Amino acid sequence: MSDLHSRPTQARKRSEITHWDRCVDVAVVGFGGAGACAAIEASDAGAQVMIFELASAAGGSTALSSAEIYMGGDGGTRVQQACGWQDSNRAMVDYLVASAGDQADLAKINAYVAGSVAHFDWLVARGVVFKDTQYPQRAIMTLTDDCLLFTGSEQAHPYVELAAPCPRGHNLQISGDNGGPLLMKIMAANVAARGIAVEYNSRVLTLVVDDGQPGNPVCGLIVRIDMQEVAVEVHRGVVLCNGGFVMNSAMVKKYAPGLQRSNTPIGNPGDTGSGILMGLGVGAAAINMHEGFVSLPFYPPASLTYGILVNAQGQRFINEDCYHGRVGAHVLQQAGGRIFLILGYEDYGDYETSAYLGASVAAVADSIVELETELALPEGQLQHNLDYYNHHAAAAVDPLFHKAKAWLKPIVGPYVALDCTPGRGAFFPYFTLGGLDTTPAGEALTPAGEVIAGLYAAGRTACGVPRRGDGYASGLSVGDATFSGRMAGIAAAARQPTAS
Amino acid sequence: MSDLHSRPTQARKRSEITHWDRCVDVAVVGFGGAGACAAIEASDAGAQVMIFELASAAGGSTALSSAEIYMGGDGGTRVQQACGWQDSNRAMVDYLVASAGDQADLAKINAYVAGSVAHFDWLVARGVVFKDTQYPQRAIMTLTDDCLLFTGSEQAHPYVELAAPCPRGHNLQISGDNGGPLLMKIMAANVAARGIAVEYNSRVLTLVVDDGQPGNPVCGLIVRIDMQEVAVEVHRGVVLCNGGFVMNSAMVKKYAPGLQRSNTPIGNPGDTGSGILMGLGVGAAAINMHEGFVSLPFYPPASLTYGILVNAQGQRFINEDCYHGRVGAHVLQQAGGRIFLILGYEDYGDYETSAYLGASVAAVADSIVELETELALPEGQLQHNLDYYNHHAAAAVDPLFHKAKAWLKPIVGPYVALDCTPGRGAFFPYFTLGGLDTTPAGEALTPAGEVIAGLYAAGRTACGVPRRGDGYASGLSVGDATFSGRMAGIAAAARQPTAS
Repeated sequence: MSDLHSRPTQARKRSEITHWDRCVDVAVVGFGGAGACAAIEASDAGAQVMIFELASAAGGSTALSSAEIYMGGDGGTRVQQACGWQDSNRAMVDYLVASAGDQADLAKINAYVAGSVAHFDWLVARGVVFKDTQYPQRAIMTLTDDCLLFTGSEQAHPYVELAAPCPRGHNLQISGDNGGPLLMKIMAANVAARGIAVEYNSRVLTLVVDDGQPGNPVCGLIVRIDMQEVAVEVHRGVVLCNGGFVMNSAMVKKYAPGLQRSNTPIGNPGDTGSGILMGLGVGAAAINMHEGFVSLPFYPPASLTYGILVNAQGQRFINEDCYHGRVGAHVLQQAGGRIFLILGYEDYGDYETSAYLGASVAAVADSIVELETELALPEGQLQHNLDYYNHHAAAAVDPLFHKAKAWLKPIVGPYVALDCTPGRGAFFPYFTLGGLDTTPAGEALTPAGEVIAGLYAAGRTACGVPRRGDGYASGLSVGDATFSGRMAGIAAAARQPTAS
Repeated sequence: MSDLHSRPTQARKRSEITHWDRCVDVAVVGFGGAGACAAIEASDAGAQVMIFELASAAGGSTALSSAEIYMGGDGGTRVQQACGWQDSNRAMVDYLVASAGDQADLAKINAYVAGSVAHFDWLVARGVVFKDTQYPQRAIMTLTDDCLLFTGSEQAHPYVELAAPCPRGHNLQISGDNGGPLLMKIMAANVAARGIAVEYNSRVLTLVVDDGQPGNPVCGLIVRIDMQEVAVEVHRGVVLCNGGFVMNSAMVKKYAPGLQRSNTPIGNPGDTGSGILMGLGVGAAAINMHEGFVSLPFYPPASLTYGILVNAQGQRFINEDCYHGRVGAHVLQQAGGRIFLILGYEDYGDYETSAYLGASVAAVADSIVELETELALPEGQLQHNLDYYNHHAAAAVDPLFHKAKAWLKPIVGPYVALDCTPGRGAFFPYFTLGGLDTTPAGEALTPAGEVIAGLYAAGRTACGVPRRGDGYASGLSVGDATFSGRMAGIAAAARQPTAS
């Protein structure tokens, strides 16, 4: 145990391990939402489980999030039903398939939807409390203790034509943006109640493979604890739940360079991709590595949705009633870089006190000609495009981008333009959506599609249900992390170890 | 040697090899442009070289290409100088950096540019003949035996503002689209003249790593020849030059799903990604896997450049004087899917006899109102956008997308609209731009950036100089393949093997 310079991609071999310091059935790496759920399920299935967490406390990126959880289908969760919604598996599958676009993993989506109402019940049985109410406003999160919220683009073109819309974001019963800490407090209590061992302040350095077995199954971990390298023998499976790679700028530059135009990485300091690198080191495939969530969170106030977003050509480019992450993805594709949100002053509303956006006012003007000049947009373009929008909005139609009627009304002066150009101060949060390729059960796969025995991944270490920034919905990450963690924990606990 | 079901990602171990059937200094996998150049350079450096080629003849995808070769910088190649161009390293680096965008590999670009004029001379010394003439028209390739051609977006916005424009596509002295076969005929003759052994009809199954050495360097290959598995010991290096993965639909779906909306893969049947998979199997990183070249080759006739491209909103979205691959990349980003090229009938010209595009005529009309109606575009949009374009084109400006003056003139009726919507018949060729991460010398790298001793990659098995479809220029693939092949061959031949 002499090598202090271990790299996560360099797996160790069982034949080189002279002594095992610990021995467990299932080792879970990372104590965020995915890791907690994996550990609970593995323990409940009878496995002896140990969690290794880099930080000094449980939480991970789940505790930093709002912990909206995307759930529904099959007649609806208890909350959906109480609020009068009849969700269906078909509607939820259709929406998730559309949102994942070319990258959709049908098997994973089908499993997620088929288990979603049961996942809600599982969370409730573990002590998570959801109130049977809906938050009716367009918002990024509920700041009340209400539960149900539209958190994606379900009511917006093109999704509204592809899938029956239904709200599926479930917020915990707590006021303010405090769902994440509460969820992790409950999950940590569940872990503690089961007597699951947790090693905090422990850095998992690399995996150990059994070089004496065909296919070299994963059979252990090397962990640094108290400045010592500790060899942990794992009989059934290692579950990697140690996050994505948004905090590893070298990996972002190499694998997801397009995200570098955003300005605020969302995650915890441990999101350095080490789980993905460990998987690569034993032959797992990492897929969808270029993709990420990128947002222009331009609401609340919801009234900003009455505005229009224009690019450097003064052209609209999206229906402004879609999810803020979809807007962010499209903003980054616009030629010329500059992006403005054009509003009537009355819709500017309480922007200065309620917005997350952080965009500064680029211009204020009484007429569109004046506004166009101040913004240095090509002469005549904003005039035409606003006239065109207003003319049709008065008739409650948007022939270009099909914004929903509820958000269509002519924009009248005086006008305000907010500068949403990337790099000019507006808030552009981002995180990664690529990771290890896995089966719906969480088994890690090689590039040829073969299962790597003994290795599982969940949460953002894996490539899960959410696959595209332009189709993302809030609640998919915590939904996917908790669900995929459970599946991986169950699968790892059920694995029959090969003799060694 | 019993396993007939070898997977490329499953490397073998030296300790399991009971007998080596062959022994070479440098093994080159694939006999296309990259492999030929690697073998020639390794042989000239004194190494004993063997090429393993899946097909029954040399050629690879290089022989199927036009074999334009992107070269220049440093005062210019002999042809550039003869045609009156004074290219510079600065201009060429600036252009390639801009074209690679967020994904640019500065070290690789600098090495490519610094060696580019010498690469031209090397090709000439090997027998490649270039005529000291320029082909003046805007074209995808020269069908004459002229040499020099603008093959990218050098003269178009935004590149023209970022780098001094210079033509760098070098076409071999041969009429018709026959540069590829000629280039490979010359390279194969060079290989033969050196007495380099070539095994045709041989399928390299996987790599062998030396499990008795630290870091497990690559030390051999398992090759299937005449239905037998043959173990080849390699003393210095294996150079993987066996193409990209455009012909492997499962890999395209998993790694580059966005390319699936194109309709014609460009490459040879061996472009199945097996080199990339072999690299992954020994811990190499594959990067930029989502990217590809996607083209809407809407010229010749060059006169179609006088037209405007519009999306489903009737909006222009690009300067139509840029490279066809840049147009293809932007077409795939347009909301609503439908894409039309709007032309005056006089510019339609000899489209029916000279075009590659294959787009059908969607509408013909005497007035724009009529055209707009026939195309079912949102009422008034095409009218405004064409008026706006024409008004400014008459003054030789394009305030929206900065199309160059040479291509600006008002579009007058009668009008023709070509249907360039993906999936409606227009030709959308594509190939992959992701591959193994390598140093400029061609050494394969792990995800942590460590060199994998004994393993090299070149051409489309590696991730090279061209990185983005929207910044691609013709000649970059054959330029990069031949140059990176040479670098890898030199580096492999120079490697001091570790004792075993």
